[in-house]
Amino acid sequence: MTSRERAAELDAVDELAGLRERFALPADVIYLDGNSLGALPASTPARLARVIEHEWGERLIRSWNEADWFTTPARVAGRLAPLIGADADEVAVADSTSVNLFKLLVAACRLRPGRRTLVLERGSFPTDVYIAGSVAELLGGELRLVDGPDDLPDALDETVAVLSLTHVDFRTGALWPAREVTAQAHRVGALAMWDLCHSAGALDVDLHGWGADLAVGCGYKYLNGGPGAPAFCFVARRHQDGLATPLPGWHGHAEPFAMGLDYAPAPGIGQLAVGTPPMLSLIGLDEALSTMDGVSAKSLRAKGQRLTSLFIELLDQWCPDLVLASPRDPRSRGSQVSYRHADAYPLVQALIERGVIGDFREPDIARFGFAPAYLRFVDVWDAARHVRDALAAGEHRDPRFAARGAVT
Amino acid sequence: MTSRERAAELDAVDELAGLRERFALPADVIYLDGNSLGALPASTPARLARVIEHEWGERLIRSWNEADWFTTPARVAGRLAPLIGADADEVAVADSTSVNLFKLLVAACRLRPGRRTLVLERGSFPTDVYIAGSVAELLGGELRLVDGPDDLPDALDETVAVLSLTHVDFRTGALWPAREVTAQAHRVGALAMWDLCHSAGALDVDLHGWGADLAVGCGYKYLNGGPGAPAFCFVARRHQDGLATPLPGWHGHAEPFAMGLDYAPAPGIGQLAVGTPPMLSLIGLDEALSTMDGVSAKSLRAKGQRLTSLFIELLDQWCPDLVLASPRDPRSRGSQVSYRHADAYPLVQALIERGVIGDFREPDIARFGFAPAYLRFVDVWDAARHVRDALAAGEHRDPRFAARGAVT
Repeated sequence: MTSRERAAELDAVDELAGLRERFALPADVIYLDGNSLGALPASTPARLARVIEHEWGERLIRSWNEADWFTTPARVAGRLAPLIGADADEVAVADSTSVNLFKLLVAACRLRPGRRTLVLERGSFPTDVYIAGSVAELLGGELRLVDGPDDLPDALDETVAVLSLTHVDFRTGALWPAREVTAQAHRVGALAMWDLCHSAGALDVDLHGWGADLAVGCGYKYLNGGPGAPAFCFVARRHQDGLATPLPGWHGHAEPFAMGLDYAPAPGIGQLAVGTPPMLSLIGLDEALSTMDGVSAKSLRAKGQRLTSLFIELLDQWCPDLVLASPRDPRSRGSQVSYRHADAYPLVQALIERGVIGDFREPDIARFGFAPAYLRFVDVWDAARHVRDALAAGEHRDPRFAARGAVT
Repeated sequence: MTSRERAAELDAVDELAGLRERFALPADVIYLDGNSLGALPASTPARLARVIEHEWGERLIRSWNEADWFTTPARVAGRLAPLIGADADEVAVADSTSVNLFKLLVAACRLRPGRRTLVLERGSFPTDVYIAGSVAELLGGELRLVDGPDDLPDALDETVAVLSLTHVDFRTGALWPAREVTAQAHRVGALAMWDLCHSAGALDVDLHGWGADLAVGCGYKYLNGGPGAPAFCFVARRHQDGLATPLPGWHGHAEPFAMGLDYAPAPGIGQLAVGTPPMLSLIGLDEALSTMDGVSAKSLRAKGQRLTSLFIELLDQWCPDLVLASPRDPRSRGSQVSYRHADAYPLVQALIERGVIGDFREPDIARFGFAPAYLRFVDVWDAARHVRDALAAGEHRDPRFAARGAVT
C-alpha cells in the first residue's frame, strides 16, 4: 500500500462500507478501541429516549407487557444468535460475562458428574481464572492452568469436566483454533466452553460448526450495546435437558408470576435468566444488534482481517523496529493488532491526543482494535501515519503522557 | 376523613410535597405501583441523553476516566447509604438482587465456619428461597423455612449461619420487627440478613440501629432507578475483613487493571463488584438517588404510614366488606396496602383502566404501593374513590378484565 488514495479505493468497493453511517462517530477521532467499548449506533439515542420518556415515564409498569420488556432478553438472543453460529433458543442474554461464566462453569461440572477439573489458560482474561477458581473451591474441584495449545495434551484427561478458553487473547489478539481444540476436549469426554468477549460481532464465530458446548461473551465491545451492556451465554441444545444453574432466579422460573416456593426451571436456555434485567442497558444492546441486522459474521471477519493486515503492512514499512505482539497470519489473529513497546503507555496517550484512540495493557502492550462494522481502510492508513509521526517526533517520551490514569 | 378538601389540606402542610415535582408523572394516572417499578425522575431523561450522546457517543472509552464511570458504583452507594442507615463504605451497588443474595449467603456461611444452616421465611420473595436452596446445595448445607416469627425460636440454633428475611412481605406488606429479630439471630451466633427490596426509599431502614450484618435490595422500586436498575448489598464493617465472595470478578479486584492471575480482593466492600456494570441503568439509579438528596428515611416513612393509613380508613368507610390483607397497625406495615378479593385480578385491571395503577399478586391479592416521594393525600382519596366506584359498578366481574397478561 503506497498511498491513501489506494486505501480510499478499498473503501469504495467495501461491501460493508454502508454500515458506518449507522454509527454516530465523533468527527475528530479514529476509534481503535471498539474491542473495549463499541461505538454508539446512530439510532440508539432516539430509541432510548423513547424507552425512558414514554415506556418508563408515561406507561410505567404497563411496559413490561405493552412494550414487550419481558420478552426483550429472548428477542436480543434471537438477534445475536446468527452472529455466533447458534440458534436463538441456545442463547440467553443476562447479567455480566463474569456472572455467566460462573453459571456455566458450575453447570458444566454438573453435566459431567464425577469430573471436577476445570482447565483454563493462564493468559485468559483474569476474571475467567478468578471465577473458575471460585467454582473449583465451591465444588471441591481442581483448577488446572495451561500456557498454550502445547500444554493441552497433558492437561486434558478423564477428570476434566470443562476446558474453558478465551477465543481471542485480549493482550495479543492470538486466536485459539476453536474447532480443533473443541474436538480435543471432546476426545477425553470434556466439555468445551468459549469466552467470546473479543470475538462476537467481529469474527466468524461458528459455535455449531466448532461443536462447542458452552460459551459466554459481553455485549459492549464489538456488539456496541453500550457501556456495561448485558452479556450472553450459549448452551448447545443437546446439553439443555441436563442444565442446572447455580443461580436460580425468578426470571429463569418456568412460571415467574406464580411466585411458587419451589424452583421449576424454565425450559431450555430460559433458566439462565436470574433477576430483573437492567432494561435501559439491555434495550441499548437490542438496538445495537438491530443495527447489525442482515450483516454476516463472515463478511465482518473478512473485512477485519484486511483492516488488521493493512495496519501491520503499513507499520512494517514505516516503523520496522516496532515489535508485533499479534500473530502475523490473519487466520490466527482476532480483529486487533498489538505491539510491545517499552513506552507503550505514553505512546498510547500521545496517539489519543492525536485523535487515534487505542489502549494500553500491562505490561507493555499498545493495543489497536479494528471494528469492521464502522472502520474504513482510510482510517487504518491515517492511524498508521499517526503512529509513525508520533514515534518520529518522540512523543512517547514526553513526560506529560507518562502519568497513569485509573483506566487506560 | 370526610372530604377531598381535607386531603388537600394535608398536602398543603406536607413537608415532602415539593418532592413530587422532581418526578415526571403522567397526568392521567394515580400510580400505586412504585413498589414494583418506581416513577421516572424528571431530570433522568436529560442526564441519560447526555450520557448516551456525549459520554458514550463522543467521548467513548475516555468516559471511564473523564466522566467518572469507574467510580459511579461507589458514588451511588454513597448516595444510598443514608437512606438505609449505613455508611457509604458498607454498601456496594452491582448486579441484581438475586445475584447479590447469592454472594452474601455464601459469604455469610464463610463468616460462620462450621455452620451450614440457612433460615428463610416460606413467604419470602421466591427468588430468595431459590437462591438459598442453591447455596445450601453447593455448600452441603441445609435450608430451613419458617412461616413467621413464632417459628424462630425453634428454627434458630447453633447450626445456623444466617437468618435471611424479607423486611416487608411483598404480598401483604407485613413487616418483620428487624431490630428484635436481628438480636434473636445474634443470640445463637447467627448472622442476620435483610432483603430491603420493598423497604429502601420508603421505610426508615436503620441497618446500624438494627445491628444488621448483611442486606440486599433493588434499585428500581422506591429508589426509582428505572426498570431493572442495579441492586445493592450491605456488609457491616465488622464483617468486611472476613468477607469472601463466591463471584470474584475484575471490578472487585484490588488492582483491576493489573490484570493479574491471582485474585486479590479490593479492600472492604469493594470486592462485591464483579463484572462491568450496566452503566446506563446504573447512572439512572445515580440520578434517581440525587433526586432524593437531603430527604430523610424517617420523613419518607412517616408520610408513607399516613398515606397507607388514610387509604385503609377510607376503604373501611366505603367498602366495609373488603378484606384487608395488610397489618392494620402502621408500625407493622410497609408502604403498601393489600386486599384479598376473589376477583382481585379483574378488579386491578378495572382500576388500571380508571387510571389507578396497582397490581395483582397470586392467589387473590390486590396490591397498592404508596411511594411517599411522589404521592399526595388527594391521590389516596381519589384512588380509594375509584376502588369504591369500580366495586359498586361491578367492574370486577366484567369478563374483559379477566384475561391474564404475562405480567400483572
